[in-house]
Amino acid sequence: MNRPIGIIDSGVGGLTVVKEIQRQLPKEELVYIGDTARCPYGPRPVEEVRRFTWQMIDRLIHQNIKMLVIACNTATAVVLEEVRETLSIPVVGVIRPGAAAALKATENEHVAIIGTEGTIKSKAYLHELYKINENITAHSLACPSFVPLVERGEYEGFESYQMVKRTLEPLMNKRFDTLILGCTHYPLLADVIQKAIGSERFLISSGTETAREVSTLLYHNDMLFTGNRTPCHTFYTTGSPNSFTMIANRWLDTHIDHPLTIHLGENASFFSS
Amino acid sequence: MNRPIGIIDSGVGGLTVVKEIQRQLPKEELVYIGDTARCPYGPRPVEEVRRFTWQMIDRLIHQNIKMLVIACNTATAVVLEEVRETLSIPVVGVIRPGAAAALKATENEHVAIIGTEGTIKSKAYLHELYKINENITAHSLACPSFVPLVERGEYEGFESYQMVKRTLEPLMNKRFDTLILGCTHYPLLADVIQKAIGSERFLISSGTETAREVSTLLYHNDMLFTGNRTPCHTFYTTGSPNSFTMIANRWLDTHIDHPLTIHLGENASFFSS
Repeated sequence: MNRPIGIIDSGVGGLTVVKEIQRQLPKEELVYIGDTARCPYGPRPVEEVRRFTWQMIDRLIHQNIKMLVIACNTATAVVLEEVRETLSIPVVGVIRPGAAAALKATENEHVAIIGTEGTIKSKAYLHELYKINENITAHSLACPSFVPLVERGEYEGFESYQMVKRTLEPLMNKRFDTLILGCTHYPLLADVIQKAIGSERFLISSGTETAREVSTLLYHNDMLFTGNRTPCHTFYTTGSPNSFTMIANRWLDTHIDHPLTIHLGENASFFSS
Repeated sequence: MNRPIGIIDSGVGGLTVVKEIQRQLPKEELVYIGDTARCPYGPRPVEEVRRFTWQMIDRLIHQNIKMLVIACNTATAVVLEEVRETLSIPVVGVIRPGAAAALKATENEHVAIIGTEGTIKSKAYLHELYKINENITAHSLACPSFVPLVERGEYEGFESYQMVKRTLEPLMNKRFDTLILGCTHYPLLADVIQKAIGSERFLISSGTETAREVSTLLYHNDMLFTGNRTPCHTFYTTGSPNSFTMIANRWLDTHIDHPLTIHLGENASFFSS
């Protein structure tokens, strides 16, 4: 099916989901909106997150998307269910795929979740885990310092490792064998996090698992693109195109030319480049 | 949704899929038919595989199942598409989940597949891999000695290891980083296979991945059982209940009481215990 997959995020974090979809489904065409100008969504009131998210969705619906991926944990926790009920296309959030993958990976039924304060406070991961398996023991930890670390580009090296190790300390006396990276920024810290928690524990990246879930749903809805092509992706940002390009190129390992600036909000009705 | 998941297999191999669904979705109720009396399906003509598989499906439809899992590679390769088109409930085979999981796991885009002669000859895994990513390099190998090894209960120990290592020899000069266990018996040999190919290579068990795909589809079709219960599973076999019970209890690590004998075929219309 020759229509794009729409992906929305509060900023650049969702690019880790983009990267995984490009890797696992290389023929699929993507349209991405990052609401960089109003990022982060985490500290905003629920009603505002709902309004901003719907503004992005309304724009993508006009692009004739065949599926919507909400690549932001905060937005997923707030609006996923109502978006699923409203749209006629399949809608995928980043929380359930990570939770289901953790249930697959864990052998001792002890799972840990790290995320932003908003995501941890929403208990969305706990809800998804318990809905399927009430015997799971889950430990949650908010890691507010991780997103700034990633956004400063400091996701490697000894100092990042020290900071990550110190932050994860409260989890280290728990018996978890599986850790969910409950924020789309965290896959960039995967190496230092793995080092901090030990190699015998399993890391779940919601980006990787979301892409896998997208693959399942495209297939079962007969929506996979099955011909030959090199897809042409489109990226929109509500913020500075230059800083978006810089981060996207560093994270995706591919060159993004000219992301388009998009204006969202009640009176916005135009695209400009 | 308070209806069971139906699972069919040519014999006992599909019990590895049952075990994974029980583990990943512990509240879901299962109804299993193993056509043990007419196992294996692999060497049979396509038309016979089709007829036998539909006989099992017809029986399960009367059990009001909410989803069908074809837990047999041979039957999946032959009838999956026509079953998906015919039934109004979601239908999951064991081939696509394994292929999609391999595309997720591989980092160098070199994947190997092992299976019965029938499965390898059908090229069903290659078809699913290439449909999504044409840059994959895939190596297939039929391992006809593995199923008898498992059915004799010889899936551990030095002799099994030697036999497995010798069989996999033709793959060992290939650069694959991911190996698909393309037969539902093979997860029981996972430890010796992992030892034979080296710990740095990733093993994909179609049972594990099929259960994960079942989880996704139940959720997206609003079919997950979300209350509290300990489900009561039902097992049917067309062969000896005693040998079925023995293998099931050894493989599933749980006790199965009284599997029911079922008679399939044109003139069969009764269950007996």
